[in-house]
Amino acid sequence: MEIEIATIGGYEEVGRQMTAVRAGDDIVVFDMGLNLSNVLIHDDIRTEQMHSLDLIDMGAIPDDRIMNDLEGDVQAIVPTHGHLDHIGAISKLAHRYDAPIVAAPFTLDLVKEEIQDEGKFQVQNDLIEMDAGETMPIGDRCELEFVNVTHSIINAINPVLHTPEGAIVYGLDKRIDHTPVIGDPIDMKRFREIGREGQGVLCYIEDCTNANKKGRTPSEAVARSQLRDVMRSLEDYDGGIVATTFSSHIARVTSLVEFAEEIGRQPVLLGRSMEKYSGTAERIGAATFPNDLGMYGHRKSVDRAFKRIMNEGKENFLPVVTGHQGEPRAMLTRMGRGETPYELDDGDKVIFSARVIPEPTNEGQRYQSERLLGMQGARIYDDVHVSGHLSQEGHYTMLDALQPQHVVPAHQSMKGFSGYVDLAAKQGYNLDRDLHVTSNGNVIQLV
Amino acid sequence: MEIEIATIGGYEEVGRQMTAVRAGDDIVVFDMGLNLSNVLIHDDIRTEQMHSLDLIDMGAIPDDRIMNDLEGDVQAIVPTHGHLDHIGAISKLAHRYDAPIVAAPFTLDLVKEEIQDEGKFQVQNDLIEMDAGETMPIGDRCELEFVNVTHSIINAINPVLHTPEGAIVYGLDKRIDHTPVIGDPIDMKRFREIGREGQGVLCYIEDCTNANKKGRTPSEAVARSQLRDVMRSLEDYDGGIVATTFSSHIARVTSLVEFAEEIGRQPVLLGRSMEKYSGTAERIGAATFPNDLGMYGHRKSVDRAFKRIMNEGKENFLPVVTGHQGEPRAMLTRMGRGETPYELDDGDKVIFSARVIPEPTNEGQRYQSERLLGMQGARIYDDVHVSGHLSQEGHYTMLDALQPQHVVPAHQSMKGFSGYVDLAAKQGYNLDRDLHVTSNGNVIQLV
Amino acid sequence: MEIEIATIGGYEEVGRQMTAVRAGDDIVVFDMGLNLSNVLIHDDIRTEQMHSLDLIDMGAIPDDRIMNDLEGDVQAIVPTHGHLDHIGAISKLAHRYDAPIVAAPFTLDLVKEEIQDEGKFQVQNDLIEMDAGETMPIGDRCELEFVNVTHSIINAINPVLHTPEGAIVYGLDKRIDHTPVIGDPIDMKRFREIGREGQGVLCYIEDCTNANKKGRTPSEAVARSQLRDVMRSLEDYDGGIVATTFSSHIARVTSLVEFAEEIGRQPVLLGRSMEKYSGTAERIGAATFPNDLGMYGHRKSVDRAFKRIMNEGKENFLPVVTGHQGEPRAMLTRMGRGETPYELDDGDKVIFSARVIPEPTNEGQRYQSERLLGMQGARIYDDVHVSGHLSQEGHYTMLDALQPQHVVPAHQSMKGFSGYVDLAAKQGYNLDRDLHVTSNGNVIQLV
Amino acid sequence: MEIEIATIGGYEEVGRQMTAVRAGDDIVVFDMGLNLSNVLIHDDIRTEQMHSLDLIDMGAIPDDRIMNDLEGDVQAIVPTHGHLDHIGAISKLAHRYDAPIVAAPFTLDLVKEEIQDEGKFQVQNDLIEMDAGETMPIGDRCELEFVNVTHSIINAINPVLHTPEGAIVYGLDKRIDHTPVIGDPIDMKRFREIGREGQGVLCYIEDCTNANKKGRTPSEAVARSQLRDVMRSLEDYDGGIVATTFSSHIARVTSLVEFAEEIGRQPVLLGRSMEKYSGTAERIGAATFPNDLGMYGHRKSVDRAFKRIMNEGKENFLPVVTGHQGEPRAMLTRMGRGETPYELDDGDKVIFSARVIPEPTNEGQRYQSERLLGMQGARIYDDVHVSGHLSQEGHYTMLDALQPQHVVPAHQSMKGFSGYVDLAAKQGYNLDRDLHVTSNGNVIQLV
Repeated sequence: MEIEIATIGGYEEVGRQMTAVRAGDDIVVFDMGLNLSNVLIHDDIRTEQMHSLDLIDMGAIPDDRIMNDLEGDVQAIVPTHGHLDHIGAISKLAHRYDAPIVAAPFTLDLVKEEIQDEGKFQVQNDLIEMDAGETMPIGDRCELEFVNVTHSIINAINPVLHTPEGAIVYGLDKRIDHTPVIGDPIDMKRFREIGREGQGVLCYIEDCTNANKKGRTPSEAVARSQLRDVMRSLEDYDGGIVATTFSSHIARVTSLVEFAEEIGRQPVLLGRSMEKYSGTAERIGAATFPNDLGMYGHRKSVDRAFKRIMNEGKENFLPVVTGHQGEPRAMLTRMGRGETPYELDDGDKVIFSARVIPEPTNEGQRYQSERLLGMQGARIYDDVHVSGHLSQEGHYTMLDALQPQHVVPAHQSMKGFSGYVDLAAKQGYNLDRDLHVTSNGNVIQLV
Repeated sequence: MEIEIATIGGYEEVGRQMTAVRAGDDIVVFDMGLNLSNVLIHDDIRTEQMHSLDLIDMGAIPDDRIMNDLEGDVQAIVPTHGHLDHIGAISKLAHRYDAPIVAAPFTLDLVKEEIQDEGKFQVQNDLIEMDAGETMPIGDRCELEFVNVTHSIINAINPVLHTPEGAIVYGLDKRIDHTPVIGDPIDMKRFREIGREGQGVLCYIEDCTNANKKGRTPSEAVARSQLRDVMRSLEDYDGGIVATTFSSHIARVTSLVEFAEEIGRQPVLLGRSMEKYSGTAERIGAATFPNDLGMYGHRKSVDRAFKRIMNEGKENFLPVVTGHQGEPRAMLTRMGRGETPYELDDGDKVIFSARVIPEPTNEGQRYQSERLLGMQGARIYDDVHVSGHLSQEGHYTMLDALQPQHVVPAHQSMKGFSGYVDLAAKQGYNLDRDLHVTSNGNVIQLV
Repeated sequence: MEIEIATIGGYEEVGRQMTAVRAGDDIVVFDMGLNLSNVLIHDDIRTEQMHSLDLIDMGAIPDDRIMNDLEGDVQAIVPTHGHLDHIGAISKLAHRYDAPIVAAPFTLDLVKEEIQDEGKFQVQNDLIEMDAGETMPIGDRCELEFVNVTHSIINAINPVLHTPEGAIVYGLDKRIDHTPVIGDPIDMKRFREIGREGQGVLCYIEDCTNANKKGRTPSEAVARSQLRDVMRSLEDYDGGIVATTFSSHIARVTSLVEFAEEIGRQPVLLGRSMEKYSGTAERIGAATFPNDLGMYGHRKSVDRAFKRIMNEGKENFLPVVTGHQGEPRAMLTRMGRGETPYELDDGDKVIFSARVIPEPTNEGQRYQSERLLGMQGARIYDDVHVSGHLSQEGHYTMLDALQPQHVVPAHQSMKGFSGYVDLAAKQGYNLDRDLHVTSNGNVIQLV
Repeated sequence: MEIEIATIGGYEEVGRQMTAVRAGDDIVVFDMGLNLSNVLIHDDIRTEQMHSLDLIDMGAIPDDRIMNDLEGDVQAIVPTHGHLDHIGAISKLAHRYDAPIVAAPFTLDLVKEEIQDEGKFQVQNDLIEMDAGETMPIGDRCELEFVNVTHSIINAINPVLHTPEGAIVYGLDKRIDHTPVIGDPIDMKRFREIGREGQGVLCYIEDCTNANKKGRTPSEAVARSQLRDVMRSLEDYDGGIVATTFSSHIARVTSLVEFAEEIGRQPVLLGRSMEKYSGTAERIGAATFPNDLGMYGHRKSVDRAFKRIMNEGKENFLPVVTGHQGEPRAMLTRMGRGETPYELDDGDKVIFSARVIPEPTNEGQRYQSERLLGMQGARIYDDVHVSGHLSQEGHYTMLDALQPQHVVPAHQSMKGFSGYVDLAAKQGYNLDRDLHVTSNGNVIQLV
């Protein structure tokens, strides 16, 4: 059976992921993501109203015109988890394919919201929920399996396409976490089985985000330990404490909520995306929050919440807000500008349970946000965080577990791939044979 | 009563700390340390045989000739903890003063060993053990108190000299740790009392090592959580695992020993300083190790231990060795060079539970060490560590607790002070009045 | 005679410089500058309409209320050169003092323009032109002298106040340049004389902008050599070439104009500040430009110029535009956004004859600008530049020439001072005696 | 005709370059270099006595066993210039091939010296001198041409193998320099012709050393301008001035010699490799030095020279010495340790006309060297230098000139290639088609 891999998007960048695997006549598409940075560089763009071709030209969504070169039918569109760089182009591209969208529950809910917010296209693909550990047939001879992985969002999976020639493991995005705070540990046992059963692994496509980082990415349990340490150290502080993190990082939000209560403060989630992700997680039962946890998304209700906090004494609350990257219009930046009813006083604490995405635009915005907060007297606790992506020793462990015949680095630029290439080369892979450094828009023939 | 502070050493550098406080006719000396870097820059120097004046000229030990300018008698020499930059010059300088050396038990034992190893001078000062929480009179009107603090070595204290004009708090070296793994948490309650009782704090001398770092230095509990995460992730590895850390970091060594057993390996401490510090800690009851824990210091016994490990299967052991900075003659570097009986295989793991001291010499040596280990196939887990020194939010907390009239940044160069000066200025201190940025060899008149 | 120095602004930052020297009853004020960064952090602020107290609160202009503590009369306000951080607060503060503004011709013209643009205050101080090498009496016993120095703007001087107790040398801003392209070399001979004549130098206030940089800041002749090398290498390119630099950097603009002609292109200066500074320089005869050199400041005339360039063939022109820091509204950024009639094609060249001011906000904006230009196909030549400020060996040379009794580092934050303090300490100065590390708002008693 | 390229060494690193091109039955080998870093990591290795297989195992010389896979006869071994990473393995490998070594005069002389110093192998290949601009036939249908390029050593060429299928341009190492101080400018005209004549360029192998650097590498004329600026600024200094640079960098040494005389000092070249390279350059007429220029290599004659300098007054001399990377045994480091008769005094100047090769080992050694020099009072002028390798705009220009069908990045690791891959991709090359990112030991089939 012919097997080929089309590297549609996310092979020159972090963002707008999309990969298609053809096994005989059947094609499975993994991820359809958005490169938000290529949108934001332009002023005042509203992607909801834009046509996909314009977004492709901007480098915002994958250029899927290469799909015409693949001789087969798309049987499934499989987003691996709910981050925008993996699902953000579904509303622009999925309608072109006569295939269901298959995803884990939380991911699927977020996909639905994307589809609803879309203003230009009507996405009417079937939506199929599939949990980690489950499988579905793809055509006559292949099978799709979801293996549970751990990432900075819940319900992340690595899809595996079992073919007669061996398994194709699509390894985006994950870290190896045995104590993930929410959800099950990564299923390394299953990866090791897949590496050894049948034909073994024909090809492994890997998340190289952190491939230039040494060592092991710590577990979420370590971030939790860091966060608890910071928050417990503030137990006696009787002024305002504010925290921010990735809205979609449900495990972290849960820890913030829990530790707020440990130090005698009432947590409140504020900001549109805070409300969206946590609300969704709670609705599908993936996370449990206190009954009385306030989540406010709309500007007016947020302001009302802030007023209540100021009235009842801000020393009794922990607002968990958006703005961890210093985004100019996010809640925390607005607080820094004094545009909300929440008043910062000298000595008030701001906890960034996130790290700045290392790109000058973000760094500039975050710097401005911290400066504004500092001008109001705030004290900053930053980088209370661990990454959601494998570092080099995680990559080593995955190669050891899967023993793939071919490897394809993804989810980075060439510079980002370099650490992975060095590592794979040391493990015996060769650039001219089985280690495929490629770019967007290519097709790799495996069989 | 006249109060003045002589900034003898460690005010232009990290290393060779020494400060004298005169209150009326009585003088207390805090720390007498060594700047090892200024020794190692020269080839083949053996400090044991060197005269103090030569070591002063080299910048290796404090230039205490300024003591002649202080009109009073030294009543006590008080090393705050057992690191060489705080006790390493005692054997060269203490005999000049007719005063006892007063220290916590572990520190005092290490001082004794320094004195025994000295080949040039006879130090015969009385050695007085004093625990955190205890006090002793200094002259008629002053009192010396030890407040328990937390640092990367056990038994660290901050000495406080209570004078009629207020307290002098000597704040080197510490972090604020409420969960320090071994020993008691930092006694913030006592610091807050000292800040408010009597005349309050006249002067606070502060450890600025990390004063340019944002946020809060995490607790040792966080390092422990990181370390456990790394070691548990290696539970299934059936080859060699080797760890290295600061020999004097008893809490870390204890964690390494404990986690070794958790993952089914027998820990063994190897290297002269590993044996020295852990042996001392065990002898005085400050740490409890398994009965059968091997500690080997001499070359021959280390080699014998390595041979036994190889014979019995290295997958059953965790050697904890010296060499975390890549020191050319340390155990780990020798392992990298293949000079020990321990053979590294492809995939074997080396855990650096330490970070490189950020200076090009160390960075070069550590890089070489990692390269040598890597050439033998070792996989590196580095920086599994947290610092022992306060970052900016710790400094903020200390100023808030003590409310000192004067502050004196120490334990850094001018560049290192800068973050502290900015912070203190924001809290209302002024360089021309009560914020004393100074250098080695000056006298600050407080009253 | 009593001599004291009030460090009003620019001793915690680069920006809003202001220093007063009192010699007996007479006071001379050096610089009254603006900290633009503290303005721009706020959205949509128009300083022209703002009151000085609000600007003081924002940290935008010096807090000159400390002037009340100085017992004497201001005899002169002396801006050293025409950069905004040295003259930008004159329009807000000078009217409070009954004293003339004394400056070199180019500086004085720029001060006039500041005063004219001011919307809130009426500055009616006398304006006195004084050239490098000239002197004027200050009170009965003092004399003000201008010594020629070299900086990234023409007509920079270092004012020296000769007092009976020795000279006060105000050393902001300069580099030691013996081949400055435009104007005379720095007058080191005069500095050496001042260091040796009469009482010598009582106090030297130094520009520490680059005090943490090793080596020597190269001459403008080196930047010119770099720039010529870049431009000559593009001689055969037959598409668009665009250059940007500091508008006030007349020597650099002159070189750009000259090399444009060397490679057969017609230079055109575009952007409001390009027109302002070059126009002023030409008017006062400080620079000579080709008769037909176009300078266009207003949006409409700029767009007309761009249209003409596109019509006549952009391969025949070198537009020299604003936007070297990626400022969002500057000309080059607008070109990157496609908002001007100038169309960039694949392979067109953009020369940044400037370096990014190393602060995250600038770095973020510059990155965005380069990305936008790159998206249109532009190739970037950046950092074709040398600094206008002394590095460490220049500081060494100045101390050696002046042999001052006291030194006061200025024009930086504490971190920025650190390299200077280390250097001065090595030359025998001492923080507790004659090396005055201070902050905004202090008074140093010298005699 | 079949054309293939074997990437033997230097495709994962900077060092041990070796590439073979087979055109039909004829093979040409470009470079046979040494990776010195992989030698120095081991203690006390003397490569002269070592067997090639051991050196291959160490990664010190290219693993040329892959040559067996190429079906054809080696017709020429062509070192491109005289740096060790290009000629350092000739003495270990060339004797295996029955082919002449063809090189430009200076390169050939250095090859001869390598062969003479070799202790293990007898290299007896013919040595053929060929100048830039000349050609020689390779087999019946191919021709080898040398195109003049500019690098940090004189007599650098880029060899071009003209085949019936197009030209193979071997582009290591160069910058585009139109004003190289010594020798002719790079022959861009010839490159452009080659790009357009006949079949054009089939393949371009490129020097990616600086492919991650933006902009243009400046001409040696710029380094000369920088150096002159530094040295002229020291004209009045009446103490010791010492300079160091790459011994093989004849243009730089020439400038140092010339400027020494300009400021009234007698230059003297000191150190074994200083004597070797400059002596060779002078002997073959490639450089002209003053008749009385002293060059001393042996320890004794160097010490004698130093003594003479001290006797006659060091203010009259400019010693140009080895040690620009802080190598522990080089002359300058020994001066720092006080091991030579040359005594440094406070304020003496040391000019590093070189930059530190950015690797932690070098950085550590250089730091130590500067610290030692500083402890003796020396003032450091560093980085008075420009690189010898193309930056991104040079790469852009070369692609534009040659218009190659295929490109092969070389002379770097994967991380180092990344900037080149990005650039080439932007110019339309594709990783899966004509942009060959490869590693050591592969064969690329072009035709």
